[in-house]
Amino acid sequence: MLRVDVGSDLVYEVRSPSTFLLQITAATTAHQSVVSEKLTFDPELSVEQYCVGDGGNRMHRIVVDPCQLTVKYRATVELSPEVDRSTEVNESNVSEMPPDVLTYLNPSRYCESDLLLRFAFEEFGSLERGFGRVQAVCDWVNHHLDYTPGSTNATTTAADVLVQRTGVCRDYAHLTIALCRGIGIPARYVAGYAVDLQPPDFHGFVEAYLGGQWYLFDPTRLAPISGLVRIGVGRDAADVSIATITGNTNLTSQKVWANTAADVQKATNSEQPPAVSTA
Amino acid sequence: MLRVDVGSDLVYEVRSPSTFLLQITAATTAHQSVVSEKLTFDPELSVEQYCVGDGGNRMHRIVVDPCQLTVKYRATVELSPEVDRSTEVNESNVSEMPPDVLTYLNPSRYCESDLLLRFAFEEFGSLERGFGRVQAVCDWVNHHLDYTPGSTNATTTAADVLVQRTGVCRDYAHLTIALCRGIGIPARYVAGYAVDLQPPDFHGFVEAYLGGQWYLFDPTRLAPISGLVRIGVGRDAADVSIATITGNTNLTSQKVWANTAADVQKATNSEQPPAVSTA
Amino acid sequence: MLRVDVGSDLVYEVRSPSTFLLQITAATTAHQSVVSEKLTFDPELSVEQYCVGDGGNRMHRIVVDPCQLTVKYRATVELSPEVDRSTEVNESNVSEMPPDVLTYLNPSRYCESDLLLRFAFEEFGSLERGFGRVQAVCDWVNHHLDYTPGSTNATTTAADVLVQRTGVCRDYAHLTIALCRGIGIPARYVAGYAVDLQPPDFHGFVEAYLGGQWYLFDPTRLAPISGLVRIGVGRDAADVSIATITGNTNLTSQKVWANTAADVQKATNSEQPPAVSTA
Amino acid sequence: MLRVDVGSDLVYEVRSPSTFLLQITAATTAHQSVVSEKLTFDPELSVEQYCVGDGGNRMHRIVVDPCQLTVKYRATVELSPEVDRSTEVNESNVSEMPPDVLTYLNPSRYCESDLLLRFAFEEFGSLERGFGRVQAVCDWVNHHLDYTPGSTNATTTAADVLVQRTGVCRDYAHLTIALCRGIGIPARYVAGYAVDLQPPDFHGFVEAYLGGQWYLFDPTRLAPISGLVRIGVGRDAADVSIATITGNTNLTSQKVWANTAADVQKATNSEQPPAVSTA
Repeated sequence: MLRVDVGSDLVYEVRSPSTFLLQITAATTAHQSVVSEKLTFDPELSVEQYCVGDGGNRMHRIVVDPCQLTVKYRATVELSPEVDRSTEVNESNVSEMPPDVLTYLNPSRYCESDLLLRFAFEEFGSLERGFGRVQAVCDWVNHHLDYTPGSTNATTTAADVLVQRTGVCRDYAHLTIALCRGIGIPARYVAGYAVDLQPPDFHGFVEAYLGGQWYLFDPTRLAPISGLVRIGVGRDAADVSIATITGNTNLTSQKVWANTAADVQKATNSEQPPAVSTA
Repeated sequence: MLRVDVGSDLVYEVRSPSTFLLQITAATTAHQSVVSEKLTFDPELSVEQYCVGDGGNRMHRIVVDPCQLTVKYRATVELSPEVDRSTEVNESNVSEMPPDVLTYLNPSRYCESDLLLRFAFEEFGSLERGFGRVQAVCDWVNHHLDYTPGSTNATTTAADVLVQRTGVCRDYAHLTIALCRGIGIPARYVAGYAVDLQPPDFHGFVEAYLGGQWYLFDPTRLAPISGLVRIGVGRDAADVSIATITGNTNLTSQKVWANTAADVQKATNSEQPPAVSTA
Repeated sequence: MLRVDVGSDLVYEVRSPSTFLLQITAATTAHQSVVSEKLTFDPELSVEQYCVGDGGNRMHRIVVDPCQLTVKYRATVELSPEVDRSTEVNESNVSEMPPDVLTYLNPSRYCESDLLLRFAFEEFGSLERGFGRVQAVCDWVNHHLDYTPGSTNATTTAADVLVQRTGVCRDYAHLTIALCRGIGIPARYVAGYAVDLQPPDFHGFVEAYLGGQWYLFDPTRLAPISGLVRIGVGRDAADVSIATITGNTNLTSQKVWANTAADVQKATNSEQPPAVSTA
Repeated sequence: MLRVDVGSDLVYEVRSPSTFLLQITAATTAHQSVVSEKLTFDPELSVEQYCVGDGGNRMHRIVVDPCQLTVKYRATVELSPEVDRSTEVNESNVSEMPPDVLTYLNPSRYCESDLLLRFAFEEFGSLERGFGRVQAVCDWVNHHLDYTPGSTNATTTAADVLVQRTGVCRDYAHLTIALCRGIGIPARYVAGYAVDLQPPDFHGFVEAYLGGQWYLFDPTRLAPISGLVRIGVGRDAADVSIATITGNTNLTSQKVWANTAADVQKATNSEQPPAVSTA
């Protein structure tokens, strides 16, 4: 059991009446519980919270008139590890997968598994089925990509990354997901916080469906699996944008952090939108 | 109220043990009821039926040993028209849309609304909001694409089609969907049968979310809206493949038909997989 | 007859032995003569000048050891206008074009005329053949693109731009060229200087082959045609990079200017590489 | 010295007045001489022959009124092998390459070396420079692609092929060329005939510039290097189409052959356009 303090401070310049769909709050899952949390808006706003999709994602919708908007989120989250995380875990067959899992075999906007099918089979098709095969995909992605901030943008896809061999966490995750789907393993994108991530930012990682449940993987190796805090899951980053905004609005400042609860809070400043954001 | 007989005969050469996910049966919706239906397999097989997603799609899963497999579907369906189908219907605001509708604003594998954003705004941004704006998108797509069987394949996207200006029903639908999402109108792909479609085949068309409900559109103009029979809906064709098959299997013959119930059944033969199929 | 002073100051941080292929000097053509010029390197270097291709491009090759390298170019150029620039000029037939012109009908890296063929015909195929048709292509490109620095990069192509509807001079030129080739008009890319360009930078524009000769067009409308000074021509920007560098080297500063000779020199500073550069 | 009989019979249905640019005749180079040849047209036509580019390509231009056109080419060609074809041959430095060779370092329509740069360096950057490095690229391409007729089309590029891992001779050549350029080795596309090619067809292969001259490579391994007969060279297949046709014309039949001179002629029929043709 690991207790983690996560938080984010987002400041927006809202220049026309805008609707925000925010996904920045920690999810509640079998392996993650929210001990306490606080989401505040300055100026104060009426907020609508709802859950979308089959992954328990929480989304907050606000309607904002022109102003400087500050969004603050603070939470303490308890993480319990996936117990049977080992090479003993086997793959599931398509004939047995629950219907809501099958969706994550389909190609999606940034994970064109249909294009990468042959590559995935050629490279990973003959490996022993199971947990280790997903690990092998993650290792391949980690080994063959260079982590290069600025080398990709919000429209970069797994196929792009397979050719250009550079990217950020979002791109690592997309390529891993596309390759898993290509060899018949359901995989999905997780947006979240990550303990000890340097530089601190929102993070994007992967869940793969093995042995009847979802397991976390992080092909970037930038943070320990045990310190990954989920905000939400989706087919790819298109589903879990930090902020989807309708209106003329700019992110002007952002701080993000995730620390083990005992730690002193180590926040950093960034003027850049996070890798997983469409802000 | 229109009563329609739909059906399909699919023959597969199954060369290794294969799992099929079939989406060929008529859905039940507020505007469509299944009066009677029969789905048969030769050889006989145990079939698992389940529903996926938020659109009420039915899927049938079968596991098949090597054989020649014949799948036959027959149904009588009653269609009741969308009553307020008119230019009076307005668009919904993002601030009011139900959470499960918001998903259909996201870009998807074959509908890269993120790439087409500026084009969509430039071309349709200044038109009066409402039903007529979706109609204008459909008209534009119909006018600027050439319906050319064989000009696209299973990996062709809306952006590809916007450049090359040719496609089939699937491509018409994808471009329409991407453009609607680009101007903030939720849109999704519908796979189905279509009365009087020439040549008879499965069909792909569009639903757009307006005034709090989903409305059907067919940018190909190949069949009357009132004769569209739904199999299922999804973000794009990736979600509603006629058959997703794991294993070494080939479609060897296909007949598809949809006739108003009084009609004599007019089936045709085709050796080609249908436009919306991944068979 | 217009007399123009052009120049550029480029500063590079050379960190490993590097070979530069520079294309920054004014060309000599039927409509352009170099009255005087000076190309200097600090530190001094042995320079190899040669001409490549059929457009009379001059290229300078230097081999540089680690240092801070300053390249300075100053020239006075006389421009004589294309005399019969009018709607009277007709298109040439493929059956009559000189062999070296036919090359400019082929698709190239950034001008995928093969992809845009149908679009080009649909939009411009029925217009009256001749000078006015190229002008119509330029007008279309100018009208439908937004000039947005930073919206594209060195790998952006005409097809990308047709979808995303933004770009810089290089992208405007590529799309214009691809569309001209698509309707059977040879077209090529010109890198150069442009009088009164704001902000001052290298410029990219277009030549189209009409009535047996090449005519200049600038779809950006950012500078008068009569003030365009040629450095070199090619199939697209891939052929006329300002600097192609083998080795570990960075452009650290750049000034570019082009003024009518009477003017006081109005140079500006920029830390950014120019749109047409691979530096 | 090898003596080879090559030939092709092309039949076109010309439905509107059309201009053909044909590239089907054997070239004359240091390693290839044309002993005898005959190019005939039925009906008889006036033919214009000219050479284009720096590779000595011959092109034939004809203007044809509506008819059924038969083009027949027969030639006896003597091939002398590249003498120093060995691992002793070194790479040339950019600082020493002749200007007309530098062009073949640029990315081109179907060989996007700019996109594949990092991949090329990662995979081949640390290998010993020289002939063996090009051979290693060819081996990689041969090993990682599946030769699959119909898996690609006339717009497929090297980057596409790197992702999808299938193609035909044209695609093998494009990927090899792009990877060579990516590691700084000039490379170009050769269209030609190939002794013992099965099934007989036009062929596409590669020349790489090493040790001051051009060397042939064939990543498909479908024919011996010593039996490759050149028609022409270009940056990629865009430059050496078998037939570029302006007008409403269809290829209706094609025979192609290349046999060592002693052999009995083994022609075959094909209704399909050849891989390197735009017919």
